[in-house]
Amino acid sequence: MNPRTFSFIGGDAGSWKVVSNKAVVGEGLSDVAYLNFGLSTTFSSPQTSSSSWILRGVTSNVRYATREEVTELRAKQAGLNRPGALCGVLIPIKKNDAWWALTQDERRAIFEEQSHHTSIGIEYLPAIARQLHHCRDMTESQPFDFLTWFEFHQDDTPHFDSLLARLRKTKEWTFVDREVEIRVINVAAGDSKM
Amino acid sequence: MNPRTFSFIGGDAGSWKVVSNKAVVGEGLSDVAYLNFGLSTTFSSPQTSSSSWILRGVTSNVRYATREEVTELRAKQAGLNRPGALCGVLIPIKKNDAWWALTQDERRAIFEEQSHHTSIGIEYLPAIARQLHHCRDMTESQPFDFLTWFEFHQDDTPHFDSLLARLRKTKEWTFVDREVEIRVINVAAGDSKM
Repeated sequence: MNPRTFSFIGGDAGSWKVVSNKAVVGEGLSDVAYLNFGLSTTFSSPQTSSSSWILRGVTSNVRYATREEVTELRAKQAGLNRPGALCGVLIPIKKNDAWWALTQDERRAIFEEQSHHTSIGIEYLPAIARQLHHCRDMTESQPFDFLTWFEFHQDDTPHFDSLLARLRKTKEWTFVDREVEIRVINVAAGDSKM
Repeated sequence: MNPRTFSFIGGDAGSWKVVSNKAVVGEGLSDVAYLNFGLSTTFSSPQTSSSSWILRGVTSNVRYATREEVTELRAKQAGLNRPGALCGVLIPIKKNDAWWALTQDERRAIFEEQSHHTSIGIEYLPAIARQLHHCRDMTESQPFDFLTWFEFHQDDTPHFDSLLARLRKTKEWTFVDREVEIRVINVAAGDSKM
């Protein structure tokens, strides 16, 4: 197993209780009560009886960011699993064929110069932590191209809502064929994380 | 199965007879008599008894080329499986961690502005046909990051040798951690392809 593979397992049990599950563009994902998220190697044999769906993705090298942007991101961003950051959001996205037929310079121009994807995200650091997983080049056919996972403190929910609203108005988002938004609350964290 | 997944199967039988198998950088691949190559979906159940190794990769979107470069490539390049193009070469490559830690602009600058990877390749079109497969973000751990497959007419072998020699002298190649070169001859093509 690729050591950078992560699984998102929707089912009857898990560390994250589902608060909402919304189809934003195209087909949604079936309703589940809980979400489990972690390195795929930690889920040795997911119980198919209690899981409705499994999404997998791999963390990978940056595809668009420049050195200047990465330096700013790293200086400001927070990691996952912070005490108190008990709100999680999973946003699976599939982009259309027109996006993937673009050349590297064309995708970069839409992603950043026209849509300001990275610079908008930086405005919400460190409050909104984020981990991107790529699915497009995995061995199995995947229903999405990307799985983005966010973690933040409940008080920062309005900031997260603002981040989402701004990204969804960009030119980049006109290439989104399918998007789902699943909001969850961490129910496994002990008092030490509150 | 991802419909863009290709398999390279080394073993006792196949459409391509192995002429040479050379470790260029790092560990080689075990000697085999034949190579099979094609969409993974066409190899329903590879005979493990007759296959020594299987490498898999997926064709994907371009990672570095600009619109101008892609337009020139498409105008000049030839497809695979041309009549008479009976020489095949498989070059599996793994790049080091330093390469993957670079940002997109840094990798592009080394790949093209400093190493002229695309512009060198264009000089050998249409004689040398090429198909690139990505392995780094597949679900299973893969021994290589890329599998590049070349096809050409036997008379163009000196041109292919020149292409290889020039690429191996570039700055980009200083990031190559492992490289194998397997040369094969098509033994399945009928007289119509000769």
